[in-house]
Amino acid sequence: MPLRAGVLTVSDAGSRGEREDTAGPAVASALAGAGFEVAERALLPDEEAEIAALIERWCDREELALVVTTGGTGLAPRDRTPEATAAVLDYPVPGLAEAMRAAGRASTPFASLSRGLAGVRGRTLLLNLPGSERGARESIEAVLGVLRHACQQLAARRARTPGDGDSDTTHAELAAGPPE
Amino acid sequence: MPLRAGVLTVSDAGSRGEREDTAGPAVASALAGAGFEVAERALLPDEEAEIAALIERWCDREELALVVTTGGTGLAPRDRTPEATAAVLDYPVPGLAEAMRAAGRASTPFASLSRGLAGVRGRTLLLNLPGSERGARESIEAVLGVLRHACQQLAARRARTPGDGDSDTTHAELAAGPPE
Amino acid sequence: MPLRAGVLTVSDAGSRGEREDTAGPAVASALAGAGFEVAERALLPDEEAEIAALIERWCDREELALVVTTGGTGLAPRDRTPEATAAVLDYPVPGLAEAMRAAGRASTPFASLSRGLAGVRGRTLLLNLPGSERGARESIEAVLGVLRHACQQLAARRARTPGDGDSDTTHAELAAGPPE
Repeated sequence: MPLRAGVLTVSDAGSRGEREDTAGPAVASALAGAGFEVAERALLPDEEAEIAALIERWCDREELALVVTTGGTGLAPRDRTPEATAAVLDYPVPGLAEAMRAAGRASTPFASLSRGLAGVRGRTLLLNLPGSERGARESIEAVLGVLRHACQQLAARRARTPGDGDSDTTHAELAAGPPE
Repeated sequence: MPLRAGVLTVSDAGSRGEREDTAGPAVASALAGAGFEVAERALLPDEEAEIAALIERWCDREELALVVTTGGTGLAPRDRTPEATAAVLDYPVPGLAEAMRAAGRASTPFASLSRGLAGVRGRTLLLNLPGSERGARESIEAVLGVLRHACQQLAARRARTPGDGDSDTTHAELAAGPPE
Repeated sequence: MPLRAGVLTVSDAGSRGEREDTAGPAVASALAGAGFEVAERALLPDEEAEIAALIERWCDREELALVVTTGGTGLAPRDRTPEATAAVLDYPVPGLAEAMRAAGRASTPFASLSRGLAGVRGRTLLLNLPGSERGARESIEAVLGVLRHACQQLAARRARTPGDGDSDTTHAELAAGPPE
């Protein structure tokens, strides 16, 4: 059974139909290529409350394994996607945000201006990508190889009884490298 | 019109006149070379409250586009510049701090000991650099290419009405690369 | 006098005797090779309160210069070592965590999934390493060259009067490179 993902594009102009969203489709395509089923797609304006509400719904009701946003991570006045994400996050996974920016820096120093977060809500992994198509694609490709494994670790919360040693299973898997 | 910057050196010995400050002038020179007008310079002891008060004044009254500190970012007892900065920060820009340390690590592993922050207060970008001249110079050079763009994004808060789509402008600019 | 260190392995299966701990010995060996006296060793299950209590005791009563944990940093349900560490931390040293993950990424992209923290409690440096032997070894080796210097800076809190300029000493030392 493929893991289910959602891709949210955050853009004022895009939500008004004034600009074509190319970043969202690029991310969706990368995820599909990595074996995810892209079950949800949406486009919202840079409104913090709306973004947070949709992420929450995709995590809690739709029970997606992965939610990826693109857009709203910069320093402009309306860029509030990291704040919306932080509001619904249980805990951060800083290494994924670091890896995405480090890969971005190899392409352009402007990657450092993305304030994107990575983290977990319940059993869902959340990633904020920058809004440009190139930035979004480079970011998702930088972590694509570990997303299935990360989502499977989180999904273990559903299937197992707490305390039965899944943490150790994880360590063994990590030591052995990718599980596939 | 050039963007206005302030450079604050934080050093107990420097503030007592017992040591020449070479890091501050090196940073000021790098900023001037990148087209900034260095409108403010100061030297303070490692006193958290004094540092925070000066940053606040440079942001809120002087309306500088950029405030850069050097010194007080390490693990020694009096190193409190990151705490002073965190106290007046609206939100962090973690990628700039990551980029400065990553560049530093290419030169010396001691770069990892700088706890320097990067972030925004109002419309001002704040950067903490380490106190050594070499560390400060390498850090500022690592992000110099994006500082003008970052400050221009923040300055947009002054000139535009909120909600008019400047976030999207930003994404387009980022996609296209440096605006200059 | 050598600096004293503690190594804590966090593993449910290890604590039940169902798996041999190879990561802890690898870390202890690396520290000994760098001139640390490994004065404490322990193995605990992934229980947040127990982990936090032991770290606290090693810092406050045993006055270790360095406490290193291995295990419990991933996304599995029982991985709570970063939360246990955050609960007893005075302040983070983000550059050390960044450096450990950056070194890990050069070996495997799975290094990005470690949520390990680095920081300071009192005069003790704390590091969270991943649980796999390879991950733990690569992480500690990435920062081994700066640990003595970092611990010596922290130890200065014991020997000196606050405000006598040790912060500046530090900057000079950093400018000059490793003190050894």
